[in-house]
Amino acid sequence: MNGAETLVKTLLASEVDVCFANPGTSEMHFVAALDSHPDMRCILCLFEGGASGAADGYFRMTGRVAATLLHLAPGFGNAFANLHNARKAQSGVVNVMGEHATYHLRHEAPLKGDTAGISRTISHWTRTSGDAASVARDGAEAIRAARGKNGQIATLILPANTAWEEAVAPEVAGAPAALQRPGLAQVQAAAQALRLPGAALLVDGMVLHGPLGEIALQIAKATGCRLLAPALAARIRRGAGAVPFERLAYVVEENVAVLAGISTLVLCGTQEPTSFFAYPNKPSLPAPPDCRILPLGSIEDDTGWTLQALAEAVGVSALAPEDLVALDLPQVATGAMSLEKIGQSFAALLPDEAIVVDEAITSSRHFIAASARARGHDWLAVTGGSIGYGLPAAVGAAVACPSRKVVCLEGDGSGMYTLQSLWTMAREGLDVVVVVISNRGYQILRGELANVGVTDVGRNAVRMFDVVEPSLDWVALAKGHGVEGVRVTDTDQFNAAFAEGLARKGPYLIEVIC
Amino acid sequence: MNGAETLVKTLLASEVDVCFANPGTSEMHFVAALDSHPDMRCILCLFEGGASGAADGYFRMTGRVAATLLHLAPGFGNAFANLHNARKAQSGVVNVMGEHATYHLRHEAPLKGDTAGISRTISHWTRTSGDAASVARDGAEAIRAARGKNGQIATLILPANTAWEEAVAPEVAGAPAALQRPGLAQVQAAAQALRLPGAALLVDGMVLHGPLGEIALQIAKATGCRLLAPALAARIRRGAGAVPFERLAYVVEENVAVLAGISTLVLCGTQEPTSFFAYPNKPSLPAPPDCRILPLGSIEDDTGWTLQALAEAVGVSALAPEDLVALDLPQVATGAMSLEKIGQSFAALLPDEAIVVDEAITSSRHFIAASARARGHDWLAVTGGSIGYGLPAAVGAAVACPSRKVVCLEGDGSGMYTLQSLWTMAREGLDVVVVVISNRGYQILRGELANVGVTDVGRNAVRMFDVVEPSLDWVALAKGHGVEGVRVTDTDQFNAAFAEGLARKGPYLIEVIC
Repeated sequence: MNGAETLVKTLLASEVDVCFANPGTSEMHFVAALDSHPDMRCILCLFEGGASGAADGYFRMTGRVAATLLHLAPGFGNAFANLHNARKAQSGVVNVMGEHATYHLRHEAPLKGDTAGISRTISHWTRTSGDAASVARDGAEAIRAARGKNGQIATLILPANTAWEEAVAPEVAGAPAALQRPGLAQVQAAAQALRLPGAALLVDGMVLHGPLGEIALQIAKATGCRLLAPALAARIRRGAGAVPFERLAYVVEENVAVLAGISTLVLCGTQEPTSFFAYPNKPSLPAPPDCRILPLGSIEDDTGWTLQALAEAVGVSALAPEDLVALDLPQVATGAMSLEKIGQSFAALLPDEAIVVDEAITSSRHFIAASARARGHDWLAVTGGSIGYGLPAAVGAAVACPSRKVVCLEGDGSGMYTLQSLWTMAREGLDVVVVVISNRGYQILRGELANVGVTDVGRNAVRMFDVVEPSLDWVALAKGHGVEGVRVTDTDQFNAAFAEGLARKGPYLIEVIC
Repeated sequence: MNGAETLVKTLLASEVDVCFANPGTSEMHFVAALDSHPDMRCILCLFEGGASGAADGYFRMTGRVAATLLHLAPGFGNAFANLHNARKAQSGVVNVMGEHATYHLRHEAPLKGDTAGISRTISHWTRTSGDAASVARDGAEAIRAARGKNGQIATLILPANTAWEEAVAPEVAGAPAALQRPGLAQVQAAAQALRLPGAALLVDGMVLHGPLGEIALQIAKATGCRLLAPALAARIRRGAGAVPFERLAYVVEENVAVLAGISTLVLCGTQEPTSFFAYPNKPSLPAPPDCRILPLGSIEDDTGWTLQALAEAVGVSALAPEDLVALDLPQVATGAMSLEKIGQSFAALLPDEAIVVDEAITSSRHFIAASARARGHDWLAVTGGSIGYGLPAAVGAAVACPSRKVVCLEGDGSGMYTLQSLWTMAREGLDVVVVVISNRGYQILRGELANVGVTDVGRNAVRMFDVVEPSLDWVALAKGHGVEGVRVTDTDQFNAAFAEGLARKGPYLIEVIC
């Protein structure tokens, strides 16, 4: 058994059985080992960012770690942007990155690069296996690291000879280290603080989509505090039956308005609200300057234990059905195109247990607003702000939940970063409806340019913001990747196309011209 | 004048007047500054790898540094793979990477990342501007660094507030540091060694496409040595009138065969031949074990001076016309499809002064072999081995040389990494004929798997090597990006399509089904 075989067996023995792969030459022995282990589901991505984004989406929907298979340094570079989003989403991922044979590294081969260096700029855990005998243990520790602190990026660098040389046996990943918990005095102090006027509880992570959300709501009811969630959540439960979180906002002024009046803010499994960017004369921290912040643990800590302890300290009682979001479906809209109407139709038609992967950027708010009381669904946002996350994360979510419908809301600008994921949807027959909001440009940048005070936009800026001359043809792009699609220019066409996409099995793309 | 404006003025004053851009929010003041300077040609790329690859192609054809505009950390990650190729091509590039305002960096904003860390893993020079007053000087030093050592990667990180705060004045980049030269005794020793039986001179860099090539040939003639060039050259002159370099090979065994019998190898502006990868029981260094290596300077050194000094030490005489490659055009092929025939037609039709950007990987050899005596042309290879270089480099080459025809030979697997560059070709009306060799998979990986001894290929490997189910439709992909294209299935169709593409102004794509 060679090193690569011990690694594949270690992954499988540790219940890592999905590998989003974009292999290169230096990974051939690992590929051969995968080939002799059909229990490992290998999913080919035609670009490494598709693999890392899929692993992120997969973790968000399962809480399970997937592997990625990436080519040495430049291949990891291509995966970097979606590893950034995964890191900010607290998604656990095990990257297996190829590397030259250890004895070849002293020479300047064309593909030699700083594999460990680039990994360390984004991974929580990086290790280069030194010899074949170490590969299984290193792999097991990578998995353990990826499962640590609620989810981390772990990268195992596999020199080619450690893959092909003889090794001993696979290992099984040990349980991750125990999560940190606050002291009981801290919990008591937070419980008291939440009863004060102007108190709020901000939560994140698994609280937003699991049973912990209802405990948070019980705490809010018992104390009278507001219950807040971040603007960009890795995964949040919405629609009928969901916990009615108040959401923070992306735009600084709107976030300041949401947080206005809060005098005590308890953070449970999250950090202090932070502006996405700094702007001249706008605050980096949008909470009121005199707001008292009580951190009760970060997103890396034991939020489950903490919320339970807080609930006990507060003394909570059971929720009534009316405490949760009630179903209230809008009518399907008709007539001329507007994003508001498309959002309304989307909300009316969204099926029960849909997974919405949202990278529609400036267009998102129409879909979010309309679907607040739609059928129960999960909503996945671009947590790290790095565009190109949507289509890959939709792949991962669809692999994770084959019985649920995935709806991917894309911008035409942002979708272009990782459009290759369309092919993986076709290859794997993934049940994804991709809705591309085609506003023919980077609309957010127009807004941001205005934010910095430029009102008179000239040729250089227009040519960097507008994706026209030529316009993209997303139906043709989909066809090129083997995905059927349709272009819609009014609301009725959208309704028909969306219904069609929802009714099908397999991927379908709708280009919304607006 | 704010910091961003001083940077744009510094770039222009230092004769950097092309910017391949994929901006994000943190770069808005720099965008505003670009907008008020129409002398700067801003070229939008819909993915950052398109920008870095274009800057590489631009440098290869002009020797001039272009700027890229990249979004903070994840945006730079997307540019990484083609910066790797640029680095291995010795191309000078100035990256301007956005960054959060300095005072915002203490908070954990979603897009916060290790900007300097990721830059240092690929850039020769990295600096984060500390304040607006430093931006112009930092920009000038970045340009100087990019021009140093025959071409380097320089990355200036521009915190948003250093862009928007008041600054003083632009600067002009100083001349780069003098290049290193070997001692005269070394030159004399090399001159003597080249006269020995079994001697060879290996050159690279600018020797392969400029007047220095003829000096190298004079040295070879005078001493009787062999004259070698690397397998993957950043730019090499080929066809009628070119210097007849003997080429090293990619495949280890072939490279060993090329180098067999060499007992003395003088390196001028290059390094010892190195195998692309290590394989079990194959050499990392393909030169004969008893071959004496005489390094006369690396690719970073003053190769022009060194070759001149070597020529003087040897005592050379003028070349005769028959020393250079004579025109010998093959006939246009006809009939059923084969890569050999397509290569023959390509060579027959390739126009004078064409620029061939080659990323056809396993298919390249047919085009290379057939075109050895075609009309004079330049050939650009994927120096760093990181695929996704072809379409972006073709953009850069076409921007660099608007009066020359660019032919981009692409693999269907490799083209997918940066297909967004097709849109930039359409937007800028670039004169590029893209020939996609559609063999429906990563052919090189099949060969590499055989290289490591696997002959019985199973489902996991097949599904990671073959890009079928579905096949890509490159004509539709081109249409989606605004580029017209055609699919050809026999040689006559190829001949007509290639002639059509060459006759047009603007981009055209030919999908060769083989």
